[in-house]
Amino acid sequence: MMGIEKQFITKKVAVIGTGLIGGSMALLLREKNFTNFIIGVESVKSHAEQAIQLEIVDQISTLEEAVAQSDLIIVAVPVVAALEVVGQVLDLVDRQVVVDVGSTKKELCGKLATHEKRSRFVASHPMWGTEFSGPKAATRFAFSGKAAVICNQEQSDEDALELVMEMYRYLGMHLLSMNADAHDMHTAYVSHISHITSFALANTVLEKEREENTIFELASGGFESTVRLAKSNADTWVPIFRQNKENVLDVLNEHISQLRKFKASIEKENWGYLRELIEKANQINRILK
Amino acid sequence: MMGIEKQFITKKVAVIGTGLIGGSMALLLREKNFTNFIIGVESVKSHAEQAIQLEIVDQISTLEEAVAQSDLIIVAVPVVAALEVVGQVLDLVDRQVVVDVGSTKKELCGKLATHEKRSRFVASHPMWGTEFSGPKAATRFAFSGKAAVICNQEQSDEDALELVMEMYRYLGMHLLSMNADAHDMHTAYVSHISHITSFALANTVLEKEREENTIFELASGGFESTVRLAKSNADTWVPIFRQNKENVLDVLNEHISQLRKFKASIEKENWGYLRELIEKANQINRILK
Repeated sequence: MMGIEKQFITKKVAVIGTGLIGGSMALLLREKNFTNFIIGVESVKSHAEQAIQLEIVDQISTLEEAVAQSDLIIVAVPVVAALEVVGQVLDLVDRQVVVDVGSTKKELCGKLATHEKRSRFVASHPMWGTEFSGPKAATRFAFSGKAAVICNQEQSDEDALELVMEMYRYLGMHLLSMNADAHDMHTAYVSHISHITSFALANTVLEKEREENTIFELASGGFESTVRLAKSNADTWVPIFRQNKENVLDVLNEHISQLRKFKASIEKENWGYLRELIEKANQINRILK
Repeated sequence: MMGIEKQFITKKVAVIGTGLIGGSMALLLREKNFTNFIIGVESVKSHAEQAIQLEIVDQISTLEEAVAQSDLIIVAVPVVAALEVVGQVLDLVDRQVVVDVGSTKKELCGKLATHEKRSRFVASHPMWGTEFSGPKAATRFAFSGKAAVICNQEQSDEDALELVMEMYRYLGMHLLSMNADAHDMHTAYVSHISHITSFALANTVLEKEREENTIFELASGGFESTVRLAKSNADTWVPIFRQNKENVLDVLNEHISQLRKFKASIEKENWGYLRELIEKANQINRILK
């Protein structure tokens, strides 16, 4: 069998931000032979050192050098920084393709809509992550089997889209296309609210439980899985909630109102209603494997 | 090395309820040579057939036969049924030991406090479970490394306690002792509330998201892990919330108030406060590995 790797000329890739997402992409894109040369741009000195040491990138450069030497520039910085960085990169490109991987799309796409090189940019979001951050969190066990969303694709050049789609296929992801507004609404439901419930659950337990050893000893898999995301980084998540404020508040209000139904059913000892609520929740089975 | 298995005379075990917990205990207690003969008591006919077919139990008997033929009787039925079943079993025992494995302890221990054979009973709770139920959900990959709680142990005979503690050690669990009231309060925090937040999160998403394919396609690992418990069975959980009503309501009120802090910080665009809330939640790191 001829591998697709052989038919595809490997590209020089720059990764701006060598943390969990950028670092994992770098590791896998090299392993899958999408590229054999990766330049890192990293503003945190310790992260830059780790990225070299962990062989995530071949060299660390300035933004300008990295853009000049690359075919594809992946912007993998927190979403508030991306608002500036993607524009800076676009200012520098001619033939190159620029892709971002952030969790919010509306504000970024809005800001770049009138950039004269907008068509060299592909707005995307690979739906994968963990509660950890930084180059040390980067892993080859990433992305595969999950969806990558491409937003407002009609604003990107065809060759730019093709390269980015090819990249996601190398990562084992399937592609979805939607506009940036729809993306931000959907991700509020399937990602952002999960983080808020986890943070709030952690604070609930930390607030009330003073005997920490007891929590530690008693915590079973169920608790760990619901609270896992509470370890997630504020640098990543504050800007996401900020950029997706309206959608996140909509979902959060709905979630609080759903919790109140559970509360009311237990308070009023309406066990039939509680059963209904649980059986309705069980329908998530139809959606998640 | 002499295995501990060889030094311990294997016991005949009855498992009343051959679902997730009872079935998993049966599979492992046989595999670890704690017992080589397991009698099942199962009121659901299809479950009884599955328990035989899956080699969870050697035979299905009536409650009376099972108790008469066993050294150790494990009651693994939903907590509302346990209120009746444990008493029925105790009525039948003389030398035997009876242990339950339910998620609530206060009401059961209260009810049995004056039973004339109370001392043959050990109230316990292995802190392990999954979102699945029934004999087909039973698995050998259970219990190990988690805590098993024994409640009100001063009310149990020493030989009964020793046998139950031995059983949990065979399952690879470490033992904790506490009174039933403390158990129910702690489990409200580290287990019961996680189920409510998962149920409510599932209902939040199901309520608002009509495009199910989009949820399905977009859902990443984070969403799956926070919503996993929403698949849990109403037959198991309604009685748990019912028996632990006061503690569950306390935690649920606290959780809603924690969610309101996130809501307020986002509504008021108080990003510094939002960061504080997230960084506080990150402290769950200290507690969970």
